[in-house]
Amino acid sequence: MKEIKTDILIVGAGYAGIAAAKKMHAAGKDFIIMEARDRIGGRTLTEDLASGVTVDMGAKWVGPTQHLVWEWIKETQTETYETYDQGKNLLKFKDKISSYTGTIPKIDPISLIDLGIAISKMNKLSEQISISDPWNHPRAKEYDAMTLATWMEKHIWTAKAKHLFEIGIQTVFAAEASEISLLFALFYFKSGDNMDTLISIKNGAQQSILKGGTQGLVKKIAVSFMDKIHLNEPLLKLIQNDGGVLAESPNLRIRAQKCILAIPPVLINSILFEPPLPQQKAQLYQRMPMGAAMKVYLIYPTPFWRELGFSGQIVSDEYPLKVTFDVGHADADQGVLLVFVEGNDARNFIDLAEDVRKKMIIERVEKIFGHQASTPMQYIDKCWTEEVYSRGCYTGLMGPNTLTQFGHQIRTPFQHVHFAGTETAEKWSGYLDGAISSGYRAASEVLK
Amino acid sequence: MKEIKTDILIVGAGYAGIAAAKKMHAAGKDFIIMEARDRIGGRTLTEDLASGVTVDMGAKWVGPTQHLVWEWIKETQTETYETYDQGKNLLKFKDKISSYTGTIPKIDPISLIDLGIAISKMNKLSEQISISDPWNHPRAKEYDAMTLATWMEKHIWTAKAKHLFEIGIQTVFAAEASEISLLFALFYFKSGDNMDTLISIKNGAQQSILKGGTQGLVKKIAVSFMDKIHLNEPLLKLIQNDGGVLAESPNLRIRAQKCILAIPPVLINSILFEPPLPQQKAQLYQRMPMGAAMKVYLIYPTPFWRELGFSGQIVSDEYPLKVTFDVGHADADQGVLLVFVEGNDARNFIDLAEDVRKKMIIERVEKIFGHQASTPMQYIDKCWTEEVYSRGCYTGLMGPNTLTQFGHQIRTPFQHVHFAGTETAEKWSGYLDGAISSGYRAASEVLK
Repeated sequence: MKEIKTDILIVGAGYAGIAAAKKMHAAGKDFIIMEARDRIGGRTLTEDLASGVTVDMGAKWVGPTQHLVWEWIKETQTETYETYDQGKNLLKFKDKISSYTGTIPKIDPISLIDLGIAISKMNKLSEQISISDPWNHPRAKEYDAMTLATWMEKHIWTAKAKHLFEIGIQTVFAAEASEISLLFALFYFKSGDNMDTLISIKNGAQQSILKGGTQGLVKKIAVSFMDKIHLNEPLLKLIQNDGGVLAESPNLRIRAQKCILAIPPVLINSILFEPPLPQQKAQLYQRMPMGAAMKVYLIYPTPFWRELGFSGQIVSDEYPLKVTFDVGHADADQGVLLVFVEGNDARNFIDLAEDVRKKMIIERVEKIFGHQASTPMQYIDKCWTEEVYSRGCYTGLMGPNTLTQFGHQIRTPFQHVHFAGTETAEKWSGYLDGAISSGYRAASEVLK
Repeated sequence: MKEIKTDILIVGAGYAGIAAAKKMHAAGKDFIIMEARDRIGGRTLTEDLASGVTVDMGAKWVGPTQHLVWEWIKETQTETYETYDQGKNLLKFKDKISSYTGTIPKIDPISLIDLGIAISKMNKLSEQISISDPWNHPRAKEYDAMTLATWMEKHIWTAKAKHLFEIGIQTVFAAEASEISLLFALFYFKSGDNMDTLISIKNGAQQSILKGGTQGLVKKIAVSFMDKIHLNEPLLKLIQNDGGVLAESPNLRIRAQKCILAIPPVLINSILFEPPLPQQKAQLYQRMPMGAAMKVYLIYPTPFWRELGFSGQIVSDEYPLKVTFDVGHADADQGVLLVFVEGNDARNFIDLAEDVRKKMIIERVEKIFGHQASTPMQYIDKCWTEEVYSRGCYTGLMGPNTLTQFGHQIRTPFQHVHFAGTETAEKWSGYLDGAISSGYRAASEVLK
């Protein structure tokens, strides 16, 4: 087995690992990156389709307050464009289709008020939460003993508002409201400014799209140290002693003084630690399951819906199509419709055969946009629960009793091992920006 | 690396794995057991203390309806005795100590009625749940969207009843009511008959104790095929093709036609599967975190509390001592007091230094039993969250949205791989009896 020595070992070449490596590189440090996959980028994956369109099968957008991503964008002179957001949005609810503009669908006044109050309550509650120690909020125990679904049951009164709120939650978390604790939801909203920001295009988390995709960006950042990255090397064993760490993959042994683990929390369970992880950390990583996000693209010869006066944004109650976006450039020839399938829908939908999935999605879109939608040039989908080295997307979730009992362990180093990954971020946890800041933080711990 | 061929590979030498092996052995099949630890028994661990007393540091009791364990007890002519249950039990609540008999402490009539109604409601709800498909109950979605803590908040009105109910939950699940979904709790109660059975000594899950301990029993069962067990071989990789499986540990490769995984669900995350696990199964095993059970024994020269007219059973509100039992034989010279520390208490308590833990526990017992309690011959404790190859005890728990979305996957084979372990049992899930039945079921799937 090949053995290499280095000062700092970084495990994982996603945004967090590459961010840590960038700092090491700038500081002139000796480092190596160990990556399980045959590619870098982690939960970003940009594909150039046969139809000539470039799509992000993983993380896609950048919001205006995600400053660290914008630094990378500027540094690499990456072009961006804003998500198409003109014309009317469409709401399909119980076989009725109605149009609206803005983020909140046009529904009956009672439901609309109900929905508005719920979002406003959520924002007020999350505003009080500290992103560095949410477990210290005076009512943390109470908020962390219930699911977000329980809160919704209590605070949302109309079926329509509940349904729309739920779609918002599925889109933000790639999970069900029943899977996450209220406290975790409040932390997550605050971490990304507030619920409004997370569900919005304009001034929100879905505002800007990168030409060349998000994986394209991280590839540009990594270009000056690609020779330090060892692909196809899943970390199986991590031994620590006074002198440092010994990391083993099936083909490689790496000795280092320090190690940064920049992988999803659930994958930490798959490493054999010697000595074992402290028990609270070990219990924590059993309690951060990944959400289920599926991205579906329909590529059309033209964005025909624009000519019909539609934005391409749909909110629908019909499984599996809940939310769509037009993610093509404003001047694009081709129409690029992105369909989100999230949470339990994604888990169930991906188990169908591909031709069945394609047929179902196209039928749903056709019902709303009419006959022109029936013949896309291309259908492509991806469910991240099938990715062995992510085990789901977007992020590691927390059910009840996790943040309050184990949350304080999330950034705690273990001897020579430091922990990065978007789940460890205070700001923009679960997003690319959080991944970058987590890599920077872990790097600064190691460089201290 | 050593390579062995066999027909059937069993991974894990706990009760489930040994039960499967017993069936294979009886059927004259060619099999091998691969065990990560240097011992068999899994979540059972029997120790002969210097003080001459034998104690179970893991699973301990057998209830009267755990028929499969009783079959093993009879087959091996193992002696048992009943848990000491004479004299007065003691309740310490807000610095007042009162005595009572039976399972339910003597509290004020309002709290007593409140507690009685809550337990009765729980029993009625769980009575309606099918243990083979709890996810098909008409209200399954609703019960699985909330935590058990939310149900308690709604249905228990007095602080004292809530507190006592909570101690019952911690003792039954080794977890907090906030960690588990209501549906999972109902399934678990029904699986073990009902809540009354699970919290009781007489006719309950804490009725009988094995001389020689529960690990002693499984050792006797395994004695005729100990040569088939390979210790110290943690399974790292499991490759499947048309012909069967190839299992790899650091030192061993085993080729087999079929494989039975008889390990805690969370440990399935640590195996690299080729091809990967089906995504719903992969998501399930991210969502079955282990509880936190700690067993503490105080050994005294005599069971002095018996002479004072006490049973040795304490229910207390003072961290970390919540529940105790006298687990010595009725005729024993020495006093054996078993203290349970469970859930978050266990996770926090084990992080203290051993001398601090010892001092705290003894002080608590002394407050209740008086000065004689201050000088035990021996103090010994164990927290199962520290066990790398269990990652906690008693069992893999389910938070909200797990049983309804993923529960149906728990016994589904994956190509040549079959799944055992107490978590996969319908009857007595989480108990030794469920482990045995799960091993028998997996064996019969393989032998078919």
